[in-house]
Amino acid sequence: MDKLSVVKIGGNVIEDAEALQSFLIDFAQMKGSKILVHGGGKKATAMAEKMDIPVQMIEGRRITDAQNLDIITMVYGGKINKNIVAQLQNLGCNALGLTGADGNAIQAVKRPVKSIDYGFVGDVVGINNDLFQMLLKGEYTPVCCAITHDQKGQLLNTNADTIAATLAQNLSSLFEVSLWYCFEKQGVLKDIDDDDSVIETITLEKYKKLKTEQVIHSGMIPKIDNCLDALQNGVAQVKIGAPKMISGKTKHTTLIL
Amino acid sequence: MDKLSVVKIGGNVIEDAEALQSFLIDFAQMKGSKILVHGGGKKATAMAEKMDIPVQMIEGRRITDAQNLDIITMVYGGKINKNIVAQLQNLGCNALGLTGADGNAIQAVKRPVKSIDYGFVGDVVGINNDLFQMLLKGEYTPVCCAITHDQKGQLLNTNADTIAATLAQNLSSLFEVSLWYCFEKQGVLKDIDDDDSVIETITLEKYKKLKTEQVIHSGMIPKIDNCLDALQNGVAQVKIGAPKMISGKTKHTTLIL
Repeated sequence: MDKLSVVKIGGNVIEDAEALQSFLIDFAQMKGSKILVHGGGKKATAMAEKMDIPVQMIEGRRITDAQNLDIITMVYGGKINKNIVAQLQNLGCNALGLTGADGNAIQAVKRPVKSIDYGFVGDVVGINNDLFQMLLKGEYTPVCCAITHDQKGQLLNTNADTIAATLAQNLSSLFEVSLWYCFEKQGVLKDIDDDDSVIETITLEKYKKLKTEQVIHSGMIPKIDNCLDALQNGVAQVKIGAPKMISGKTKHTTLIL
Repeated sequence: MDKLSVVKIGGNVIEDAEALQSFLIDFAQMKGSKILVHGGGKKATAMAEKMDIPVQMIEGRRITDAQNLDIITMVYGGKINKNIVAQLQNLGCNALGLTGADGNAIQAVKRPVKSIDYGFVGDVVGINNDLFQMLLKGEYTPVCCAITHDQKGQLLNTNADTIAATLAQNLSSLFEVSLWYCFEKQGVLKDIDDDDSVIETITLEKYKKLKTEQVIHSGMIPKIDNCLDALQNGVAQVKIGAPKMISGKTKHTTLIL
Protein backbone atom coordinates (compact mmCIF):
# COMPACT_ATOMS: atom_id res chain seq x y z
CA MET A 1 0.00 0.00 0.00
CA ASP A 2 1.27 3.48 -0.85
CA LYS A 3 1.77 5.92 2.00
CA LEU A 4 -0.32 9.07 2.43
CA SER A 5 0.14 11.93 4.87
CA VAL A 6 -2.90 14.00 5.88
CA VAL A 7 -1.66 17.18 7.58
CA LYS A 8 -3.92 19.57 9.47
CA ILE A 9 -2.80 23.09 10.35
CA GLY A 10 -4.65 25.43 12.66
CA GLY A 11 -4.95 29.13 13.32
CA ASN A 12 -1.54 29.45 14.97
CA VAL A 13 0.12 28.71 11.61
CA ILE A 14 -2.37 30.52 9.38
CA GLU A 15 -2.45 33.75 11.40
CA ASP A 16 1.32 34.20 11.17
CA ALA A 17 2.64 34.79 7.62
CA GLU A 18 6.19 33.83 8.57
CA ALA A 19 5.14 30.64 10.37
CA LEU A 20 2.95 29.73 7.38
CA GLN A 21 5.76 30.29 4.88
CA SER A 22 8.12 28.17 6.97
CA PHE A 23 5.50 25.42 7.31
CA LEU A 24 4.79 25.40 3.56
CA ILE A 25 8.50 24.99 2.77
CA ASP A 26 8.57 21.88 4.97
CA PHE A 27 5.24 20.63 3.62
CA ALA A 28 6.40 20.99 0.00
CA GLN A 29 9.40 18.81 0.83
CA MET A 30 7.42 15.99 2.48
CA LYS A 31 7.90 12.86 0.39
CA GLY A 32 5.04 10.85 -1.08
CA SER A 33 1.35 11.54 -1.40
CA LYS A 34 -0.06 14.20 0.90
CA ILE A 35 -3.14 16.27 1.65
CA LEU A 36 -3.25 19.58 3.55
CA VAL A 37 -6.30 20.56 5.61
CA HIS A 38 -6.74 24.07 6.99
CA GLY A 39 -9.30 26.27 8.72
CA GLY A 40 -8.63 29.91 9.41
CA GLY A 41 -10.94 30.96 12.25
CA LYS A 42 -9.53 34.28 13.39
CA LYS A 43 -9.15 35.67 9.88
CA ALA A 44 -12.86 35.08 9.29
CA THR A 45 -13.72 36.84 12.54
CA ALA A 46 -11.50 39.80 11.60
CA MET A 47 -13.18 40.04 8.19
CA ALA A 48 -16.66 39.90 9.75
CA GLU A 49 -15.70 42.73 12.09
CA LYS A 50 -14.41 44.82 9.19
CA MET A 51 -17.75 44.35 7.45
CA ASP A 52 -19.82 45.02 10.58
CA ILE A 53 -21.25 41.50 10.56
CA PRO A 54 -21.90 40.21 14.08
CA VAL A 55 -20.05 37.04 15.10
CA GLN A 56 -21.74 34.86 17.69
CA MET A 57 -19.77 32.18 19.52
CA ILE A 58 -21.37 29.63 21.88
CA GLU A 59 -19.01 27.43 23.92
CA GLY A 60 -16.15 28.34 21.60
CA ARG A 61 -18.09 27.41 18.48
CA ARG A 62 -19.11 29.80 15.77
CA ILE A 63 -22.81 30.18 15.00
CA THR A 64 -22.79 30.28 11.21
CA ASP A 65 -25.60 32.39 9.80
CA ALA A 66 -25.81 33.14 6.06
CA GLN A 67 -23.62 36.25 6.31
CA ASN A 68 -20.94 34.45 8.30
CA LEU A 69 -21.03 31.55 5.86
CA ASP A 70 -20.33 34.04 3.05
CA ILE A 71 -17.36 35.37 5.01
CA ILE A 72 -16.06 31.85 5.61
CA THR A 73 -16.48 30.96 1.95
CA MET A 74 -14.53 34.06 0.95
CA VAL A 75 -11.81 33.77 3.59
CA TYR A 76 -11.26 29.98 3.86
CA GLY A 77 -12.21 28.99 0.31
CA GLY A 78 -10.86 32.13 -1.38
CA LYS A 79 -8.15 34.12 0.32
CA ILE A 80 -6.44 31.53 2.54
CA ASN A 81 -6.86 28.50 0.29
CA LYS A 82 -5.76 30.18 -2.93
CA ASN A 83 -2.76 31.90 -1.36
CA ILE A 84 -1.58 28.61 0.16
CA VAL A 85 -2.01 26.92 -3.23
CA ALA A 86 -0.09 29.69 -5.04
CA GLN A 87 2.73 29.55 -2.48
CA LEU A 88 2.97 25.75 -2.72
CA GLN A 89 3.11 26.01 -6.52
CA ASN A 90 6.10 28.30 -6.12
CA LEU A 91 7.72 25.68 -3.86
CA GLY A 92 7.37 22.96 -6.50
CA CYS A 93 4.33 21.27 -4.92
CA ASN A 94 1.46 20.83 -7.38
CA ALA A 95 -1.26 21.92 -4.96
CA LEU A 96 -4.96 22.03 -5.85
CA GLY A 97 -7.45 23.70 -3.53
CA LEU A 98 -10.80 22.16 -2.68
CA THR A 99 -13.89 22.81 -0.66
CA GLY A 100 -16.07 19.79 0.00
CA ALA A 101 -18.35 20.90 -2.85
CA ASP A 102 -15.57 20.71 -5.46
CA GLY A 103 -15.85 17.38 -7.20
CA ASN A 104 -18.24 16.39 -4.39
CA ALA A 105 -15.07 15.90 -2.32
CA ILE A 106 -16.61 15.99 1.17
CA GLN A 107 -20.32 15.44 1.80
CA ALA A 108 -22.02 16.60 4.98
CA VAL A 109 -25.42 17.18 6.55
CA LYS A 110 -26.47 20.40 8.24
CA ARG A 111 -26.16 19.81 11.96
CA PRO A 112 -29.64 19.13 13.40
CA VAL A 113 -30.93 21.83 15.77
CA LYS A 114 -31.04 20.56 19.36
CA SER A 115 -30.41 22.91 22.29
CA ILE A 116 -28.23 25.10 20.06
CA ASP A 117 -28.81 26.08 16.42
CA TYR A 118 -25.31 26.23 14.94
CA GLY A 119 -26.67 27.46 11.61
CA PHE A 120 -24.87 26.41 8.42
CA VAL A 121 -22.54 23.94 10.11
CA GLY A 122 -21.90 20.54 8.57
CA ASP A 123 -21.31 17.10 10.04
CA VAL A 124 -19.29 15.03 7.57
CA VAL A 125 -21.04 11.96 6.15
CA GLY A 126 -18.86 10.94 3.22
CA ILE A 127 -15.69 11.39 1.19
CA ASN A 128 -15.28 11.04 -2.58
CA ASN A 129 -12.36 8.60 -2.42
CA ASP A 130 -12.24 8.36 -6.23
CA LEU A 131 -11.51 12.08 -6.55
CA PHE A 132 -8.68 12.01 -4.00
CA GLN A 133 -7.25 8.86 -5.54
CA MET A 134 -7.32 10.40 -9.02
CA LEU A 135 -5.65 13.62 -7.84
CA LEU A 136 -2.99 11.85 -5.78
CA LYS A 137 -2.23 9.41 -8.61
CA GLY A 138 -1.81 12.45 -10.88
CA GLU A 139 0.70 13.82 -8.33
CA TYR A 140 -1.54 16.69 -7.30
CA THR A 141 -1.64 17.70 -3.63
CA PRO A 142 -5.19 18.46 -2.45
CA VAL A 143 -5.46 21.47 -0.13
CA CYS A 144 -8.80 21.22 1.68
CA CYS A 145 -10.39 24.11 3.51
CA ALA A 146 -12.94 23.66 6.29
CA ILE A 147 -16.02 23.85 4.07
CA THR A 148 -18.28 20.96 3.03
CA HIS A 149 -21.62 20.77 1.18
CA ASP A 150 -24.91 18.96 1.54
CA GLN A 151 -25.15 17.92 -2.17
CA LYS A 152 -28.28 20.08 -2.38
CA GLY A 153 -26.55 23.36 -3.11
CA GLN A 154 -25.71 24.38 0.45
CA LEU A 155 -22.13 25.05 1.57
CA LEU A 156 -21.48 24.21 5.24
CA ASN A 157 -18.86 25.40 7.72
CA THR A 158 -17.11 22.31 9.12
CA ASN A 159 -14.49 21.64 11.77
CA ALA A 160 -11.06 21.18 10.13
CA ASP A 161 -9.92 18.53 12.66
CA THR A 162 -12.95 16.43 11.77
CA ILE A 163 -12.34 16.85 8.04
CA ALA A 164 -8.72 15.71 8.48
CA ALA A 165 -9.75 12.69 10.57
CA THR A 166 -12.53 11.66 8.18
CA LEU A 167 -10.26 12.01 5.14
CA ALA A 168 -7.59 9.93 6.89
CA GLN A 169 -10.06 7.22 7.91
CA ASN A 170 -11.75 6.93 4.53
CA LEU A 171 -8.52 6.95 2.55
CA SER A 172 -7.13 4.17 4.78
CA SER A 173 -8.88 1.72 2.46
CA LEU A 174 -6.51 2.87 -0.31
CA PHE A 175 -3.37 4.08 1.48
CA GLU A 176 -1.32 3.54 4.61
CA VAL A 177 -2.28 6.86 6.21
CA SER A 178 -0.43 9.03 8.70
CA LEU A 179 -2.54 11.80 10.21
CA TRP A 180 -0.58 14.85 11.41
CA TYR A 181 -2.17 17.39 13.75
CA CYS A 182 -0.03 20.52 13.99
CA PHE A 183 -0.76 22.62 17.06
CA GLU A 184 0.94 25.07 19.40
CA LYS A 185 2.76 22.49 21.58
CA GLN A 186 5.63 20.13 20.75
CA GLY A 187 3.37 17.17 21.43
CA VAL A 188 1.82 15.55 24.49
CA LEU A 189 3.99 16.76 27.38
CA LYS A 190 4.76 14.96 30.68
CA ASP A 191 5.24 18.39 32.23
CA ILE A 192 3.07 21.09 30.71
CA ASP A 193 5.73 23.72 31.52
CA ASP A 194 8.56 21.82 29.90
CA ASP A 195 8.51 21.74 26.10
CA ASP A 196 11.25 19.11 26.16
CA SER A 197 9.13 16.60 28.07
CA VAL A 198 7.42 15.25 24.93
CA ILE A 199 6.03 11.73 25.25
CA GLU A 200 7.26 10.33 21.95
CA THR A 201 4.99 7.30 21.65
CA ILE A 202 1.56 6.65 23.08
CA THR A 203 -0.24 3.35 22.64
CA LEU A 204 -3.79 2.67 23.74
CA GLU A 205 -2.49 0.82 26.80
CA LYS A 206 -0.01 3.56 27.72
CA TYR A 207 -2.75 6.16 27.31
CA LYS A 208 -4.94 4.42 29.91
CA LYS A 209 -1.99 4.42 32.31
CA LEU A 210 -1.18 8.10 31.66
CA LYS A 211 -4.80 9.02 32.29
CA THR A 212 -4.88 7.09 35.57
CA GLU A 213 -1.66 8.83 36.62
CA GLN A 214 -3.26 12.15 35.57
CA VAL A 215 -0.29 12.97 33.33
CA ILE A 216 -2.87 13.42 30.58
CA HIS A 217 -5.93 15.37 31.69
CA SER A 218 -8.54 18.02 30.83
CA GLY A 219 -8.36 19.44 27.27
CA MET A 220 -5.89 16.84 26.03
CA ILE A 221 -8.29 13.93 26.65
CA PRO A 222 -10.88 14.65 23.90
CA LYS A 223 -8.02 15.44 21.48
CA ILE A 224 -6.38 12.07 22.11
CA ASP A 225 -9.71 10.25 22.13
CA ASN A 226 -10.28 11.58 18.59
CA CYS A 227 -6.83 10.36 17.54
CA LEU A 228 -7.49 6.89 18.96
CA ASP A 229 -10.81 6.87 17.19
CA ALA A 230 -8.99 7.51 13.90
CA LEU A 231 -6.55 4.67 14.67
CA GLN A 232 -9.42 2.32 15.41
CA ASN A 233 -10.89 3.27 12.05
CA GLY A 234 -7.88 2.25 10.02
CA VAL A 235 -5.40 5.14 10.24
CA ALA A 236 -1.88 3.73 10.69
CA GLN A 237 -0.53 6.46 12.98
CA VAL A 238 -1.46 9.87 14.32
CA LYS A 239 1.17 12.49 15.03
CA ILE A 240 0.67 15.50 17.30
CA GLY A 241 3.17 18.31 17.58
CA ALA A 242 4.44 21.67 16.40
CA PRO A 243 4.26 22.36 12.63
CA LYS A 244 8.02 21.82 12.37
CA MET A 245 7.50 18.09 13.14
CA ILE A 246 6.66 17.42 9.48
CA SER A 247 10.31 18.12 8.61
CA GLY A 248 11.20 15.10 10.78
CA LYS A 249 13.63 17.28 12.73
CA THR A 250 11.69 17.89 15.95
CA LYS A 251 10.29 15.69 18.71
CA HIS A 252 6.57 15.03 18.61
CA THR A 253 4.06 12.49 19.88
CA THR A 254 3.15 9.48 17.76
CA LEU A 255 -0.03 7.63 18.62
CA ILE A 256 -0.45 4.01 17.57
CA LEU A 257 -2.85 1.32 18.71
CA MET B 1 -12.10 13.48 -31.23
CA ASP B 2 -14.42 14.00 -28.28
CA LYS B 3 -16.39 17.22 -28.12
CA LEU B 4 -15.80 19.89 -25.46
CA SER B 5 -17.83 23.02 -24.71
CA VAL B 6 -16.09 25.98 -23.06
CA VAL B 7 -18.77 28.36 -21.80
CA LYS B 8 -18.06 31.88 -20.54
CA ILE B 9 -20.60 33.83 -18.50
CA GLY B 10 -20.30 37.49 -17.61
CA GLY B 11 -21.60 39.90 -15.04
CA ASN B 12 -25.14 40.03 -16.45
CA VAL B 13 -25.65 36.40 -15.40
CA ILE B 14 -23.66 36.47 -12.18
CA GLU B 15 -25.24 39.65 -10.77
CA ASP B 16 -28.75 38.22 -11.05
CA ALA B 17 -29.44 35.21 -8.79
CA GLU B 18 -32.46 34.12 -10.85
CA ALA B 19 -30.65 34.41 -14.19
CA LEU B 20 -27.72 32.47 -12.72
CA GLN B 21 -29.95 29.69 -11.40
CA SER B 22 -31.70 29.40 -14.77
CA PHE B 23 -28.35 29.35 -16.59
CA LEU B 24 -26.93 26.67 -14.28
CA ILE B 25 -29.94 24.42 -14.91
CA ASP B 26 -29.26 24.64 -18.66
CA PHE B 27 -25.52 24.25 -18.17
CA ALA B 28 -25.94 21.12 -16.02
CA GLN B 29 -27.98 19.58 -18.85
CA MET B 30 -25.44 20.28 -21.61
CA LYS B 31 -24.27 16.95 -22.97
CA GLY B 32 -20.63 15.90 -23.07
CA SER B 33 -17.48 17.42 -21.61
CA LYS B 34 -17.70 21.06 -20.58
CA ILE B 35 -15.88 23.83 -18.77
CA LEU B 36 -17.45 26.95 -17.24
CA VAL B 37 -15.50 30.23 -17.03
CA HIS B 38 -16.73 33.18 -14.96
CA GLY B 39 -15.62 36.56 -13.72
CA GLY B 40 -17.77 38.61 -11.39
CA GLY B 41 -16.67 42.24 -11.73
CA LYS B 42 -19.45 44.19 -10.06
CA LYS B 43 -19.63 41.95 -7.01
CA ALA B 44 -15.94 42.61 -6.37
CA THR B 45 -16.51 46.36 -6.70
CA ALA B 46 -19.45 46.20 -4.26
CA MET B 47 -17.34 44.27 -1.76
CA ALA B 48 -14.46 46.76 -2.07
CA GLU B 49 -16.88 49.61 -1.40
CA LYS B 50 -18.25 47.83 1.67
CA MET B 51 -14.71 47.50 2.98
CA ASP B 52 -13.73 51.09 2.12
CA ILE B 53 -11.11 49.93 -0.33
CA PRO B 54 -10.74 52.34 -3.27
CA VAL B 55 -11.39 50.89 -6.73
CA GLN B 56 -9.57 52.55 -9.60
CA MET B 57 -10.69 51.96 -13.19
CA ILE B 58 -8.75 53.21 -16.22
CA GLU B 59 -10.42 52.88 -19.62
CA GLY B 60 -12.90 50.39 -18.15
CA ARG B 61 -10.18 48.21 -16.68
CA ARG B 62 -9.61 47.61 -13.00
CA ILE B 63 -6.28 48.60 -11.52
CA THR B 64 -5.55 45.65 -9.24
CA ASP B 65 -3.53 46.64 -6.18
CA ALA B 66 -2.87 44.12 -3.38
CA GLN B 67 -6.09 44.99 -1.53
CA ASN B 68 -8.23 44.66 -4.65
CA LEU B 69 -6.52 41.37 -5.51
CA ASP B 70 -7.52 40.08 -2.06
CA ILE B 71 -11.12 41.11 -2.75
CA ILE B 72 -11.06 39.40 -6.15
CA THR B 73 -9.60 36.23 -4.64
CA MET B 74 -12.34 36.20 -2.00
CA VAL B 75 -15.23 37.10 -4.32
CA TYR B 76 -14.31 35.29 -7.57
CA GLY B 77 -12.33 32.38 -6.10
CA GLY B 78 -14.43 32.02 -2.93
CA LYS B 79 -17.97 33.28 -2.90
CA ILE B 80 -18.97 33.14 -6.58
CA ASN B 81 -16.97 30.06 -7.59
CA LYS B 82 -17.95 27.91 -4.59
CA ASN B 83 -21.62 28.83 -4.77
CA ILE B 84 -21.73 27.99 -8.48
CA VAL B 85 -20.01 24.67 -7.77
CA ALA B 86 -22.43 23.83 -4.93
CA GLN B 87 -25.44 24.70 -7.10
CA LEU B 88 -24.15 22.59 -10.01
CA GLN B 89 -23.58 19.66 -7.63
CA ASN B 90 -27.24 19.93 -6.65
CA LEU B 91 -28.13 19.83 -10.37
CA GLY B 92 -26.23 16.58 -10.91
CA CYS B 93 -23.19 18.17 -12.53
CA ASN B 94 -19.93 17.12 -10.87
CA ALA B 95 -18.40 20.62 -10.87
CA LEU B 96 -14.93 21.37 -9.49
CA GLY B 97 -13.80 24.97 -9.03
CA LEU B 98 -10.37 26.19 -10.05
CA THR B 99 -8.26 29.29 -10.06
CA GLY B 100 -5.26 29.20 -12.39
CA ALA B 101 -3.06 28.37 -9.38
CA ASP B 102 -4.95 25.13 -8.59
CA GLY B 103 -3.04 22.27 -10.14
CA ASN B 104 -1.11 24.93 -12.08
CA ALA B 105 -4.20 25.11 -14.30
CA ILE B 106 -3.55 28.49 -15.96
CA GLN B 107 -0.15 30.16 -15.99
CA ALA B 108 0.30 33.86 -16.57
CA VAL B 109 2.82 36.69 -16.33
CA LYS B 110 2.17 39.96 -14.56
CA ARG B 111 1.36 42.52 -17.25
CA PRO B 112 4.47 44.66 -17.90
CA VAL B 113 4.10 48.30 -16.89
CA LYS B 114 3.96 50.57 -19.95
CA SER B 115 1.89 53.77 -19.94
CA ILE B 116 -0.46 52.22 -17.33
CA ASP B 117 0.44 50.05 -14.34
CA TYR B 118 -2.48 47.63 -14.09
CA GLY B 119 -1.05 46.10 -10.90
CA PHE B 120 -1.62 42.39 -10.26
CA VAL B 121 -3.11 41.63 -13.67
CA GLY B 122 -2.04 38.55 -15.60
CA ASP B 123 -1.56 37.82 -19.27
CA VAL B 124 -2.08 34.10 -19.87
CA VAL B 125 0.97 32.19 -21.11
CA GLY B 126 -0.01 28.54 -20.66
CA ILE B 127 -2.63 25.95 -19.78
CA ASN B 128 -2.08 22.65 -17.95
CA ASN B 129 -3.80 20.48 -20.56
CA ASP B 130 -3.03 17.31 -18.55
CA LEU B 131 -5.05 18.58 -15.59
CA PHE B 132 -8.09 19.46 -17.70
CA GLN B 133 -7.86 16.17 -19.59
CA MET B 134 -7.68 14.19 -16.33
CA LEU B 135 -10.66 16.04 -14.82
CA LEU B 136 -12.80 15.78 -17.97
CA LYS B 137 -11.95 12.11 -18.40
CA GLY B 138 -13.04 11.59 -14.77
CA GLU B 139 -16.35 13.31 -15.69
CA TYR B 140 -15.65 16.36 -13.56
CA THR B 141 -16.70 19.78 -14.87
CA PRO B 142 -14.04 22.44 -14.24
CA VAL B 143 -15.44 25.82 -13.16
CA CYS B 144 -12.70 28.40 -13.72
CA CYS B 145 -12.74 31.85 -12.18
CA ALA B 146 -10.86 34.80 -13.63
CA ILE B 147 -7.70 34.34 -11.56
CA THR B 148 -4.34 32.99 -12.78
CA HIS B 149 -0.90 32.73 -11.17
CA ASP B 150 2.71 33.42 -12.13
CA GLN B 151 4.05 30.08 -10.75
CA LYS B 152 6.12 32.15 -8.28
CA GLY B 153 3.42 32.47 -5.62
CA GLN B 154 1.55 35.44 -7.05
CA LEU B 155 -2.14 35.28 -7.92
CA LEU B 156 -3.17 37.52 -10.84
CA ASN B 157 -6.50 39.04 -11.87
CA THR B 158 -7.17 37.99 -15.48
CA ASN B 159 -9.81 38.74 -18.09
CA ALA B 160 -12.38 35.91 -18.19
CA ASP B 161 -12.91 36.20 -21.98
CA THR B 162 -9.19 35.66 -22.50
CA ILE B 163 -9.14 32.68 -20.13
CA ALA B 164 -12.04 31.07 -22.02
CA ALA B 165 -10.39 31.67 -25.41
CA THR B 166 -7.00 30.37 -24.27
CA LEU B 167 -8.54 27.26 -22.69
CA ALA B 168 -10.52 26.61 -25.88
CA GLN B 169 -7.48 27.06 -28.10
CA ASN B 170 -5.13 24.92 -26.02
CA LEU B 171 -7.64 22.12 -25.52
CA SER B 172 -8.29 22.01 -29.29
CA SER B 173 -5.29 19.68 -29.51
CA LEU B 174 -7.30 17.13 -27.49
CA PHE B 175 -10.96 17.92 -28.22
CA GLU B 176 -13.24 19.34 -30.89
CA VAL B 177 -13.96 22.55 -29.00
CA SER B 178 -17.00 24.84 -29.11
CA LEU B 179 -16.45 28.18 -27.37
CA TRP B 180 -19.63 29.85 -26.06
CA TYR B 181 -19.67 33.52 -25.10
CA CYS B 182 -22.84 34.39 -23.19
CA PHE B 183 -23.64 38.09 -23.16
CA GLU B 184 -26.61 40.46 -22.94
CA LYS B 185 -27.66 40.26 -26.63
CA GLN B 186 -29.17 37.36 -28.57
CA GLY B 187 -26.13 37.33 -30.83
CA VAL B 188 -24.74 39.56 -33.57
CA LEU B 189 -27.74 41.58 -34.75
CA LYS B 190 -28.42 43.01 -38.22
CA ASP B 191 -30.47 45.72 -36.53
CA ILE B 192 -29.26 46.64 -33.04
CA ASP B 193 -32.83 47.53 -32.00
CA ASP B 194 -34.34 44.24 -33.16
CA ASP B 195 -33.48 41.23 -31.00
CA ASP B 196 -34.93 38.95 -33.67
CA SER B 197 -32.45 40.07 -36.32
CA VAL B 198 -29.76 37.62 -35.21
CA ILE B 199 -27.22 36.72 -37.89
CA GLU B 200 -27.10 32.97 -37.33
CA THR B 201 -23.85 32.14 -39.07
CA ILE B 202 -20.80 34.28 -39.71
CA THR B 203 -17.82 33.04 -41.68
CA LEU B 204 -14.57 34.96 -42.12
CA GLU B 205 -15.67 35.96 -45.63
CA LYS B 206 -19.15 37.06 -44.51
CA TYR B 207 -17.60 39.04 -41.64
CA LYS B 208 -15.49 41.07 -44.07
CA LYS B 209 -18.61 41.87 -46.09
CA LEU B 210 -20.63 42.79 -42.97
CA LYS B 211 -17.85 45.13 -41.87
CA THR B 212 -17.71 46.82 -45.27
CA GLU B 213 -21.49 47.26 -45.19
CA GLN B 214 -21.13 48.63 -41.63
CA VAL B 215 -23.67 46.11 -40.29
CA ILE B 216 -20.95 45.15 -37.80
CA HIS B 217 -19.17 48.12 -36.28
CA SER B 218 -17.67 49.72 -33.17
CA GLY B 219 -17.67 47.52 -30.02
CA MET B 220 -18.63 44.36 -31.87
CA ILE B 221 -15.48 44.39 -34.04
CA PRO B 222 -12.85 43.57 -31.35
CA LYS B 223 -15.22 40.92 -29.92
CA ILE B 224 -15.54 39.17 -33.27
CA ASP B 225 -11.85 39.60 -34.01
CA ASN B 226 -11.13 37.67 -30.80
CA CYS B 227 -13.54 34.92 -31.86
CA LEU B 228 -11.91 34.62 -35.29
CA ASP B 229 -8.55 34.50 -33.61
CA ALA B 230 -9.76 31.51 -31.56
CA LEU B 231 -11.03 29.82 -34.73
CA GLN B 232 -7.69 30.38 -36.44
CA ASN B 233 -6.04 28.73 -33.45
CA GLY B 234 -7.94 25.48 -33.69
CA VAL B 235 -11.33 26.10 -32.05
CA ALA B 236 -14.05 24.42 -34.13
CA GLN B 237 -16.78 27.02 -33.61
CA VAL B 238 -17.53 30.08 -31.49
CA LYS B 239 -21.07 30.88 -30.38
CA ILE B 240 -22.23 34.31 -29.22
CA GLY B 241 -25.61 34.92 -27.67
CA ALA B 242 -27.81 35.12 -24.61
CA PRO B 243 -27.14 32.56 -21.83
CA LYS B 244 -30.27 30.64 -22.89
CA MET B 245 -28.53 29.65 -26.15
CA ILE B 246 -26.75 26.78 -24.38
CA SER B 247 -30.13 25.03 -24.09
CA GLY B 248 -30.21 24.92 -27.90
CA LYS B 249 -33.61 26.58 -27.82
CA THR B 250 -32.77 30.16 -28.81
CA LYS B 251 -31.23 31.82 -31.84
CA HIS B 252 -27.61 32.85 -31.55
CA THR B 253 -24.64 33.60 -33.77
CA THR B 254 -22.23 30.82 -34.72
CA LEU B 255 -18.83 31.83 -36.03
CA ILE B 256 -16.87 29.42 -38.19
CA LEU B 257 -13.88 29.93 -40.47
